Amino acid sequence: MGVVYYKQNKNILEPHLSWDEMRLVYVSFNDRQETLTPTAVHCHEKNLELQYICGGRGNLRIGSRLYEVQEGDLLVYNQGELHDESADPEQGLWFYNCGVTGLNLPGRPEGELIAPETSPRIHAGEMAGVVESLFKLLYAEVERDLPKNEQITHDILRVLISMILYQLPKECQLPPREKDRLLIACKDYIDSHFMEELTVEKLAERSHMSISGFAHQFKKIFGFPPIQYIIRRRIGEAQRLLFTTDLSITEVSVRVGYDNISYFNNQFKRFAGMSPQNYRKSKVGAHQFKKLNKLLLHHPI
Amino acid sequence: MGVVYYKQNKNILEPHLSWDEMRLVYVSFNDRQETLTPTAVHCHEKNLELQYICGGRGNLRIGSRLYEVQEGDLLVYNQGELHDESADPEQGLWFYNCGVTGLNLPGRPEGELIAPETSPRIHAGEMAGVVESLFKLLYAEVERDLPKNEQITHDILRVLISMILYQLPKECQLPPREKDRLLIACKDYIDSHFMEELTVEKLAERSHMSISGFAHQFKKIFGFPPIQYIIRRRIGEAQRLLFTTDLSITEVSVRVGYDNISYFNNQFKRFAGMSPQNYRKSKVGAHQFKKLNKLLLHHPI
Repeated sequence: MGVVYYKQNKNILEPHLSWDEMRLVYVSFNDRQETLTPTAVHCHEKNLELQYICGGRGNLRIGSRLYEVQEGDLLVYNQGELHDESADPEQGLWFYNCGVTGLNLPGRPEGELIAPETSPRIHAGEMAGVVESLFKLLYAEVERDLPKNEQITHDILRVLISMILYQLPKECQLPPREKDRLLIACKDYIDSHFMEELTVEKLAERSHMSISGFAHQFKKIFGFPPIQYIIRRRIGEAQRLLFTTDLSITEVSVRVGYDNISYFNNQFKRFAGMSPQNYRKSKVGAHQFKKLNKLLLHHPI
Repeated sequence: MGVVYYKQNKNILEPHLSWDEMRLVYVSFNDRQETLTPTAVHCHEKNLELQYICGGRGNLRIGSRLYEVQEGDLLVYNQGELHDESADPEQGLWFYNCGVTGLNLPGRPEGELIAPETSPRIHAGEMAGVVESLFKLLYAEVERDLPKNEQITHDILRVLISMILYQLPKECQLPPREKDRLLIACKDYIDSHFMEELTVEKLAERSHMSISGFAHQFKKIFGFPPIQYIIRRRIGEAQRLLFTTDLSITEVSVRVGYDNISYFNNQFKRFAGMSPQNYRKSKVGAHQFKKLNKLLLHHPI
């Protein structure tokens, strides 16, 4: 039971935070089944992404760190932050995602909601139920194309983002250890040069380490051996291109660094469990793909 | 599964609807147990009230009409609208309530969210889950006194009220039948003169009907015989005064039309299942009562 009374206050609006430019650009729900086609290393150059874990377990790599996630976790991917999903193969992982543009917090780069010294994984705890409901409502508003949904999704985003900024418990994270800096620099190099020909030899050299030492340390920090990480980065970019553009499969394969299309097809299939064509179809769907094409004409993601 | 894409739109804000003055003044949850102490005929002169039925069954009288309600129903009580709750004695009725001030829709009186020709009972249907979550969130924000909750509850109210205005299914209701008008006028007279000495004879005379005809028709329309309705109106006002002021029990009893305090105590107890003193304690609670007193100094409800 309970009656809760509430004091009135004349100055309830945050004076320095402007919400006017903020927009929802997409919202999606990924069910357990889609665990079978995970998304490899990718980032969103033009939007911030929020993700709420509804169930299952998995490992998410965000920037240079690995995070174990489960039900009730909320993940914040600042604009342009590389990330990578690995669902637990037995339990799977299901979640809501949404993309937000035009968030400008005072003194922060565009689309940065979480400061670098704060963990992007937030345990929503006793607020998990309401956080999930807010995602559910965002999804329902857009999926059903309800009247005035643009105004309502805007207000829901304000609630979500204010809860993240002011209410949900946040954890500090230490800066990377000195001895890991070279390896992180090397990973950053892969992230931006993945379409070039990269070898473990050259990468080890960049890190001033032996080949075996480099491969061992790399795996320890990032969860994958260097070669596999390069593949994940390429496949992740291919997924993004398949998903958000109508480039041909051949063009996608070239853009992510494969000269040989059948080799690309094999690598893709091994990772995602299906061909690039089928991936595009399954992820976008006949109906949504049309919508998406319309969207892309004006607003490439 | 599903990915839903969303078009961006530059003009998402309603130009003519100003939210700046709107405030949450209270939010409460009434559990099944509280069914035993129902609230009789009352109104909120200074705020609009929204109510979401979480479970159980009951009859609500709003203005001159009776509505059956159950899980998933959202009720809108425009500012100053008299209403009355009767829970099903077996199943009970449990719900969230919240009070809102400063809502001014273009071309409507202050605090009028639902036009008179529209039913104030809204079946939330497939949106019921999210509507309930929004109330739950409002309650959590205020109960836990979370940081920046004033801004967040404001945004949640915007979502709720926009959903009511633009999305939830609304039913038209016919104007009252010509032959019921005299009886409605008579009920309106009771509503505003309940503290005076009223007799069925005089009321029948006002309606140009025989005493038995009047009593029969009155019960048919409003659910209670006239005498019982007068008592409910008096007890409802007494509950409001006990709940929102610190007037003495004697003063409350005089204000609602009882010269004899022990007769008032008996009538109150018969209706609410407890004495006026205990009602005040149980409804407000030691902790909240303090808060409430503080609130009342500046903002009588």
